Amino acid sequence: MVTHKSLFNAGPLTAERILDATEDVLRRFGPLKTTVIDVARLLRVSHGSVYRHFAHKNALLDSVLERWLSRLSGPLAVIAAEPGPAPERLRRWFDVMIRVLRSKAREDPDLFATYVAMAAETGIAFQAHGDRLRTHLAKILDDGLRQGQFQITDPHAAGAALLDATVRFHHPLHAGEWSETNIDREFEAVWSLAMRGLEARGSETARPRF
Amino acid sequence: MVTHKSLFNAGPLTAERILDATEDVLRRFGPLKTTVIDVARLLRVSHGSVYRHFAHKNALLDSVLERWLSRLSGPLAVIAAEPGPAPERLRRWFDVMIRVLRSKAREDPDLFATYVAMAAETGIAFQAHGDRLRTHLAKILDDGLRQGQFQITDPHAAGAALLDATVRFHHPLHAGEWSETNIDREFEAVWSLAMRGLEARGSETARPRF
Repeated sequence: MVTHKSLFNAGPLTAERILDATEDVLRRFGPLKTTVIDVARLLRVSHGSVYRHFAHKNALLDSVLERWLSRLSGPLAVIAAEPGPAPERLRRWFDVMIRVLRSKAREDPDLFATYVAMAAETGIAFQAHGDRLRTHLAKILDDGLRQGQFQITDPHAAGAALLDATVRFHHPLHAGEWSETNIDREFEAVWSLAMRGLEARGSETARPRF
Repeated sequence: MVTHKSLFNAGPLTAERILDATEDVLRRFGPLKTTVIDVARLLRVSHGSVYRHFAHKNALLDSVLERWLSRLSGPLAVIAAEPGPAPERLRRWFDVMIRVLRSKAREDPDLFATYVAMAAETGIAFQAHGDRLRTHLAKILDDGLRQGQFQITDPHAAGAALLDATVRFHHPLHAGEWSETNIDREFEAVWSLAMRGLEARGSETARPRF
């Protein structure tokens, strides 16, 4: 959590500092009761100063949600862009995503629930976030196809299927299940099934490939 | 929906008629506000008559939930017990489950939400229901293993993984997504990935099998 000290002793009023303060206010009051005046008060500035950066409350909330989602997807974009064997990157991409989501849900559950509710309401941000994740997976799976690791024909479709097949382990709707004793074992079982599906070769069936 | 006529003109007061009436009351008032007196009034009997079948309100609610869950799993148990090629039965098992859940969610959304909330609260009924579903899948996958259709070593673990991998398409938490345009196409992509995983043979990797 950002301390108040860092909020009002941090030099010029930047958009970043305003977003830090907005997150603090959100955590305490939720999106409905959060106001620009609360944010300005926490920063010890006039609300006019905040409005010079964000035209209205919704612009402020959209930006802080966008920042939260970017912080989730940023480290994943790096893994997608890296060179190296695709199976290892694919697994690391999921491990990082799941670890970050679990720690956010566990360490600051109210703020996590707030952001999830905001993302669900502003369908656009959530859709764009999902599109980013699917683009990462398409990149890694395409690399794996070129490396001869995956037997697929459409990396984007295969990535979307992989994200759907693991939804229980990363979709915030299931956050209540992430602390269950067997959750890691259950992820391994789904992962193993999916990897066998991606790597499958020489099947005699006429099942269509991606 | 059960008509009132059928409720109070149906001869002797059976447990089944009481459960029909309970469902009607639940639909209108929800589990918290439902009382045995409401149920008796709808049936035009004394509440003492209801208590002769169900000792208290919670016994009534547990029974009506159990009946609802049994009606979901009943047709699936039949498919699991049938003879015949396992891949076709496996697919039909999922098709029936998904079709029934979707129609319940679409045709009577309030009652669906009520039962789902009751099931989530009484964790035991929900767990038992999940165990029944996993037992069906283990049976079909074991048949498939004997028929040489699936390359697995632990049918129960493979069935649990398959249920997890398709969770987006049958877990009530995702009911809001079931009316999306692409939902069937997205299910096919996950299904195809999972079936390739179950059927995979001769993979050179050291990936553990179920």
